Amino acid sequence: MPLEIERKFLVKADFVPKNARAIPMVQAYLCADPQRTVRVRIAGNLAWLTVKGGLTGNSRPEFEYAIPAEEAREMMKLAVGFPVEKVRYEIWVNGKKWEVDIFEGMNQGLMLAEVELDTENESVTLPDWVGEEVSGDMRYHNSRLSEFPFTRWE
Amino acid sequence: MPLEIERKFLVKADFVPKNARAIPMVQAYLCADPQRTVRVRIAGNLAWLTVKGGLTGNSRPEFEYAIPAEEAREMMKLAVGFPVEKVRYEIWVNGKKWEVDIFEGMNQGLMLAEVELDTENESVTLPDWVGEEVSGDMRYHNSRLSEFPFTRWE
Repeated sequence: MPLEIERKFLVKADFVPKNARAIPMVQAYLCADPQRTVRVRIAGNLAWLTVKGGLTGNSRPEFEYAIPAEEAREMMKLAVGFPVEKVRYEIWVNGKKWEVDIFEGMNQGLMLAEVELDTENESVTLPDWVGEEVSGDMRYHNSRLSEFPFTRWE
Repeated sequence: MPLEIERKFLVKADFVPKNARAIPMVQAYLCADPQRTVRVRIAGNLAWLTVKGGLTGNSRPEFEYAIPAEEAREMMKLAVGFPVEKVRYEIWVNGKKWEVDIFEGMNQGLMLAEVELDTENESVTLPDWVGEEVSGDMRYHNSRLSEFPFTRWE
């Protein structure tokens, strides 16, 4: 079974993405249950339909399929919650790819960094621009940010 | 936008599928909301991930993607409700394909016939083995049959 193993961190406020490609994304959820999410993501003229299962440790099953962007746009009309808008920067640190998401729209002000691991116990070098780890914190799941966006947090 | 336009009928108890290919299917739902369903279907070694929107008249948006059967089997573990098991028979009547589903498992005893239309107002010849029309009746949606299966109806 395809597994996604990842750790997630807040990003320090003074972070500036240098020499990193900016990928604007919008994604929405057909299902945002903790035990199963169904995500539609559009980045430029590419799009994906992605099913993820519940989190066990830092791992969860993940199934991803490329789909036509036009169909993704139509499917987003069926979504629950708000669309999640962000710009993603891919940054390589010690041979490991970090994805830094700078959120916009309803989640403006939030910056998250994720790193995918090959195993649960893999050790990883933390770049100096990452802050608190929020791997297990459901509030920072993008599916949850769609329902309870950052700008509405207390 | 891809639209599914269909009418649905109960099938009379004395129906016998003659000269029709039997296609055993199992399907389960990652989401079974009336306004959006996400279905995983396996028929033999073929499988699909299908998103449908809510019903307007007899029409609903439908997006279907072929996926590896092995991934579909794994994804079914994330489903809500019961798996819906049935044998489908494809029967041609006056140039129109009817799909007759004879349900098994938790929906044993139920037989439904569906015909896909090109337009909402297309007239269609009803074969003599169809009974009451149940097109608008949510109880007969497969997504609903997954949550409230026929053998548990009062």
